[in-house]
Amino acid sequence: MLKVIAEDFIKPDCVEKVMALYRELVSATKKEPLCIAYDLYIDEKDPGHFIFIEEWPDRKALELHCESEHFRRLVPLIDQHKRKDAQYILMNSLVTAHDL
Amino acid sequence: MLKVIAEDFIKPDCVEKVMALYRELVSATKKEPLCIAYDLYIDEKDPGHFIFIEEWPDRKALELHCESEHFRRLVPLIDQHKRKDAQYILMNSLVTAHDL
Repeated sequence: MLKVIAEDFIKPDCVEKVMALYRELVSATKKEPLCIAYDLYIDEKDPGHFIFIEEWPDRKALELHCESEHFRRLVPLIDQHKRKDAQYILMNSLVTAHDL
Repeated sequence: MLKVIAEDFIKPDCVEKVMALYRELVSATKKEPLCIAYDLYIDEKDPGHFIFIEEWPDRKALELHCESEHFRRLVPLIDQHKRKDAQYILMNSLVTAHDL
């Protein structure tokens, strides 16, 4: 299992514009057969700081997501409004139910 | 609903030592009646970078967690091994099932 945090930083005056793009990206991604979780959050302190929390079975599934039509079409449109580069953390679960 | 990402940065030679503390913290927190989710992950690229992904009904529930016996006892013990200060993001859900 692969957990991902992806953070986007959008210019303040472009937040409304990217909302429709994010909604389409989330909707299409949740329909991918290998997608376990793909949820989008917004930083309480920074309305231009968007955080995806994702879950995929493995790295290959994440790669397939990044090659999807919706990802390749929508992410460059979102990136036109960024104020700095996105950040990604790929993570493994440390404490599983088995450990507790 | 309140989503939280809490990131700890532990000295490389202390990672083994904090594991038992983290396991106890996760186990006790998951038993809190208001805890919706409290899962711990480790950065694939940095074995001292620990990431909690949490979910609470509201900010009051998060405050109660931070006042719990296990939090007040274990977090200072973990912090003895930090290489830099922890980071926190408090987030609201942007795209809900209702929007899609």
